[in-house]
Amino acid sequence: MVSSTQHFTEDRSVEAVLERNAACTDARLGEIMAVLVPHLHAIIKELRLTPEEWLAAIQFLTRAGQISSDRRQEFILLSDTLGVSMLVDAINNRKIDEVTPSTVLGPFYVNGAPNLPMGAMIAHHGRGEPLFVLGQVSDESGLPLAGVALDVWQTSEDGFYDTQDDSQPDMNLRGVFHTATDGRFWFRSIVPASYPIPSDGPVGDMLKALGRHPMRPAHIHFILRCAGFDTLTTHIFIDGDPYLDSDAVFGVKYSLIAPLRRPTVEEQRQHALPDGCQCLSLDFRLQREAL
Amino acid sequence: MVSSTQHFTEDRSVEAVLERNAACTDARLGEIMAVLVPHLHAIIKELRLTPEEWLAAIQFLTRAGQISSDRRQEFILLSDTLGVSMLVDAINNRKIDEVTPSTVLGPFYVNGAPNLPMGAMIAHHGRGEPLFVLGQVSDESGLPLAGVALDVWQTSEDGFYDTQDDSQPDMNLRGVFHTATDGRFWFRSIVPASYPIPSDGPVGDMLKALGRHPMRPAHIHFILRCAGFDTLTTHIFIDGDPYLDSDAVFGVKYSLIAPLRRPTVEEQRQHALPDGCQCLSLDFRLQREAL
Ligand SMILES: [Cu+2]
Ligand SMILES: [Fe+3]
Ligand SMILES: [Fe+3]
Repeated sequence: MVSSTQHFTEDRSVEAVLERNAACTDARLGEIMAVLVPHLHAIIKELRLTPEEWLAAIQFLTRAGQISSDRRQEFILLSDTLGVSMLVDAINNRKIDEVTPSTVLGPFYVNGAPNLPMGAMIAHHGRGEPLFVLGQVSDESGLPLAGVALDVWQTSEDGFYDTQDDSQPDMNLRGVFHTATDGRFWFRSIVPASYPIPSDGPVGDMLKALGRHPMRPAHIHFILRCAGFDTLTTHIFIDGDPYLDSDAVFGVKYSLIAPLRRPTVEEQRQHALPDGCQCLSLDFRLQREAL
Repeated sequence: MVSSTQHFTEDRSVEAVLERNAACTDARLGEIMAVLVPHLHAIIKELRLTPEEWLAAIQFLTRAGQISSDRRQEFILLSDTLGVSMLVDAINNRKIDEVTPSTVLGPFYVNGAPNLPMGAMIAHHGRGEPLFVLGQVSDESGLPLAGVALDVWQTSEDGFYDTQDDSQPDMNLRGVFHTATDGRFWFRSIVPASYPIPSDGPVGDMLKALGRHPMRPAHIHFILRCAGFDTLTTHIFIDGDPYLDSDAVFGVKYSLIAPLRRPTVEEQRQHALPDGCQCLSLDFRLQREAL
């Protein structure tokens, strides 16, 4: 009844599972299983996983699914904190050295932020340290790009996105700007804060058990869109943040770090910046779409 | 700010994640991560997983968590159908050839089934084909073992456990028997049926996409407990079942398959078996506990 090739044993556990997929008509799914199953079984064999540990893993995954909702995605946090999200980003955004690197999208992006005129203020909740953000977008050779859409979002001065915080109006600290003919952009905001990823669930427990903190260094998110160029999802990080070398989600890349600085006299006058306003400046270079 | 050893790149993605665990005080957890992270990252690199596939994986896992409940455990089904449960069983129950092999516990075990006198009937729902189950329990050298507890459970004639089926009384098709002084046991039941594992969730969708069916061949579950011996969790499978060589959870082992047969004249008389009753017989050998 049972042919000898199909009996499950420790030695041929992978073959036993994969030979069942002979009737699979989805070639990519077959490929995914052919890679997933051997690594998955190797993990269990190398660890000699006990039934108790297996059950703890089942319970961990179940809890992660059950704590997830419209506003909370624990499996994305798990992917982020295990470096999986950054790895998928790296593999799918292999770029030449001359252009700005990408980093994680994160769970706080909201589609449909308002188009704003250059220089507009994006903070509407009446708190925080004034910040002026500016830069220039160019192609890989430094040629300025006009009309590039910059979709920006960031936390408040106490580290919350509008979607996490009832005290902020809708679409607070979000907006879409477009570069001028010389590729430049500028807008007003407040200094964002470092913040913890949600840590009251199984991923938080995992980080605690690993001796890791849940913090991300302060940053401003950007998605840059321009016809003919690869869309760039990235951050500007603020230099000096204590979490720059231990970002819980591994998002930091050197060339994305910029210092807070005092405005130049020229900037101060041209943009009528308030007293004590700080500047954060980064230039972006986009990679031309492969034909 | 960011030391060169901590920047995340595709090439050193594993190191970037693992060096964060330096402060982990749970040695086993550190070991688990040191095995899990390299394999997990290798899966993603070998597949060159796309962002769309990554998102589909996030959604699959989330759905698995959310469909799970007190009565349904989708991550156990996932583990079962990927051969993980059988692998954990195999690793933790390495046995000498002379004893009966173990197989999966499955999700339908219920603690606290009633102790029953030898020969008792376990089917109380008034349907099904009469069955007489019998055998002998011994140690690895064939020496009979008295007083071994056999915790048994099985499906009805239409493939449902009592916990899945309102038409069955509580603890239907469940019971605990103890071997006689000669190591023998016997009880009355009905012939169980092959049945599908729950297939209306993400695991069912996965099986469908892989061209696999969700069926398990008909079987009776046993847990054998005896002081001084390893507890044995196993099945008796019914020979001739069409799913014996494609059990959805990889639970079949040759030596656990037994034929349905007519009772001998002696059995018929001794146990007053009804007309048309079938017999299913398997002897179990237990492995002595390692000292
Ligand atoms: Cu591997
Ligand atoms: Fe963020
Ligand atoms: Fe079963």
